[in-house]
Amino acid sequence: MTDFSQTRALFHLPDSITYLDGNSLGPLPLAARDRVARMMGEEWGNMLIGGWNQAGWYTQPRRVGDRIAGLIGAGPGQVVMGDTLSIKVYQALSAALSLRPERRVILSDSGNFPSDLYVAQGIARSRDADLRVVAPGEVAGMIGPEVAVLMLTEVDYRTGRRHDMAALTARAHENGVLTLWDLAHSAGAVDVDLLGVGADFAVGCTYKYLNGGPGAPAFIWVNPRHAERAQPSLQGWMGHAAPFDFDRDYQPAAGIERMRVGTPPVIALTALDAALDVWDGVDMAALRARSITLGQRFIAGVEARCPQLELHSPRDPARRGSQVSFRHASAFAVMQALIANGVIGDFRAPDVLRFGFAPLYNGIEDVDRAVDTLAMVLGSAMWQRAEFHRRGDVT
Amino acid sequence: MTDFSQTRALFHLPDSITYLDGNSLGPLPLAARDRVARMMGEEWGNMLIGGWNQAGWYTQPRRVGDRIAGLIGAGPGQVVMGDTLSIKVYQALSAALSLRPERRVILSDSGNFPSDLYVAQGIARSRDADLRVVAPGEVAGMIGPEVAVLMLTEVDYRTGRRHDMAALTARAHENGVLTLWDLAHSAGAVDVDLLGVGADFAVGCTYKYLNGGPGAPAFIWVNPRHAERAQPSLQGWMGHAAPFDFDRDYQPAAGIERMRVGTPPVIALTALDAALDVWDGVDMAALRARSITLGQRFIAGVEARCPQLELHSPRDPARRGSQVSFRHASAFAVMQALIANGVIGDFRAPDVLRFGFAPLYNGIEDVDRAVDTLAMVLGSAMWQRAEFHRRGDVT
Repeated sequence: MTDFSQTRALFHLPDSITYLDGNSLGPLPLAARDRVARMMGEEWGNMLIGGWNQAGWYTQPRRVGDRIAGLIGAGPGQVVMGDTLSIKVYQALSAALSLRPERRVILSDSGNFPSDLYVAQGIARSRDADLRVVAPGEVAGMIGPEVAVLMLTEVDYRTGRRHDMAALTARAHENGVLTLWDLAHSAGAVDVDLLGVGADFAVGCTYKYLNGGPGAPAFIWVNPRHAERAQPSLQGWMGHAAPFDFDRDYQPAAGIERMRVGTPPVIALTALDAALDVWDGVDMAALRARSITLGQRFIAGVEARCPQLELHSPRDPARRGSQVSFRHASAFAVMQALIANGVIGDFRAPDVLRFGFAPLYNGIEDVDRAVDTLAMVLGSAMWQRAEFHRRGDVT
Repeated sequence: MTDFSQTRALFHLPDSITYLDGNSLGPLPLAARDRVARMMGEEWGNMLIGGWNQAGWYTQPRRVGDRIAGLIGAGPGQVVMGDTLSIKVYQALSAALSLRPERRVILSDSGNFPSDLYVAQGIARSRDADLRVVAPGEVAGMIGPEVAVLMLTEVDYRTGRRHDMAALTARAHENGVLTLWDLAHSAGAVDVDLLGVGADFAVGCTYKYLNGGPGAPAFIWVNPRHAERAQPSLQGWMGHAAPFDFDRDYQPAAGIERMRVGTPPVIALTALDAALDVWDGVDMAALRARSITLGQRFIAGVEARCPQLELHSPRDPARRGSQVSFRHASAFAVMQALIANGVIGDFRAPDVLRFGFAPLYNGIEDVDRAVDTLAMVLGSAMWQRAEFHRRGDVT
């Protein structure tokens, strides 16, 4: 059984704050700081060019990918790291569309992160495909034989609403539709079982619940049944079957390796690799149970003491990720006042307060402090003062 | 006048070696190690999510880009950092092709780095365009009115041969052809004048002569006359006109900002930013003069003392970058023996020995040691022993 009181000590978290924004940027794992310092001094500094082989820099994208795979229900050799989430969305969506050449509809929803939609708009324009964006609740009903790819973010970045990945994937497959899941708010936050549900493609970032640091590399997973047929749109050096033969013609590497593009970002991958140490031995079911405990306690506490706030997340934890959102007409000002009092969540326009719960370092005491502080802020003139200052700034 | 004996002290370079492989991976600038440690502890660690604004992480891709701009003859606000060179080639080539919709030929040469050709092959296939790859000496004659984009790496990674960027750009423009220059082996190595020659697009990496570390972020430059019309193929969050409005539709940002894609790689950009401190006050003409002095001395020394080697680079320094290559039938073994004796260059199949000269930290003493060691290795049985071991490994 994971002892979550032990995992908290593995992070640098200033005592004066309660950090509930790990759904945006995870805190610094102490190991990441130390490992990067060592990598820079001992590997880059002393090995120089030799680091590529001696320190294993070349194979790092897949070794780290294997560690991520273990957290999302994927197998070894199925995940590779690199680039950013937008680029991995681009790769996965392009490859998926090429596997359904006779269809031209990309189906997504308005709960998707906007940049996933930007990527899809660009691809749709260049391929004369059609991007359909419907409300989250309408997705299932819109899956039909004209759809090539169903592209969804499992957990909504504003509301925390969680799609039923198993049911939607099953329905997609009944209609010959491929699925692409963005796990930005899922990886390290909820129990994901990609192989179990039989998903087709998945991508995600690592700077949220996986604590890889600002701008940490993204990941991509391709179900092994597609991996040898998926055609990379970004034909990069490191995705070549034999990069150091310097052939003039591109030959995709076997399996997921072809989704590598350029030279791996070694410093960033080293930080992420160290950050993943925290996950060794963590039982995802236990993590999920703790996440639900924290979220439910927060909802109960806020609803009991802060009637000014309206729940913006599903009440049923089975339909929610590891985040709880509330609405307030002056949400920006309320969040500013909260932060000034040491409780860090974040604001999303126009009126959303977001609170992420990361069981590795958040506990009951964080929930209670957040509730207390929210009640105090809302019951005082604090947020009105912040609102006043804000409007003063704007005008 | 730059004092190059002072700049050497800014790097971590083990005393026991002569490092002539900065054309592959530059050494560790001491400031990079220190700055990254500080960024991780004080910014990520203490500011947490607040680092995006308080520490200026969001604007880092352009601030660092401005520093690169100063080294390649570009202006402020014209260069942006991120991703890898392959991805920047993809962005630049896609955008350039879209500016010449009535043409369908991409012209490149066999001296280009293979992965640039891989990227172009992928784009050519998806757009039904035609990639023509000719010998470097034939490029000028192949520029005609059917060509949309001339895509070249200025300095050849094997031979160090340098194209005449001004003449080829002028000839391209006479024919209505856009130019895309890969500056991987140029930036920080030779005097590049993008605005002076009126080039259209340029890209490059920062882990070679710019010493940004393994897998450091790439850069892209778009001539201001195209920047507002260049259409991004990778429509990413950070390239949106208003990323934090979370609009559902993509609107490209003004100018070069639209070539940003995802969340910036903050740790890696911090290392690079610190690495660029070394360039403050460096006069590029003086750097180039020193590079030529080092290369010519190396050629003269090797030709005088190592008749077994055949010069594989242009003898005329005006036609050469900051690298000198020689050929030898057992080049791999010779390089292994050289490295074992503390002189680090590298090998490129089948028979090339490469030596890069980085004036910021290489001096006459490095050239002389390399010549002495080459002569010693070639005059002894060392390389034959290495060759014997190698064949033993292979069979």
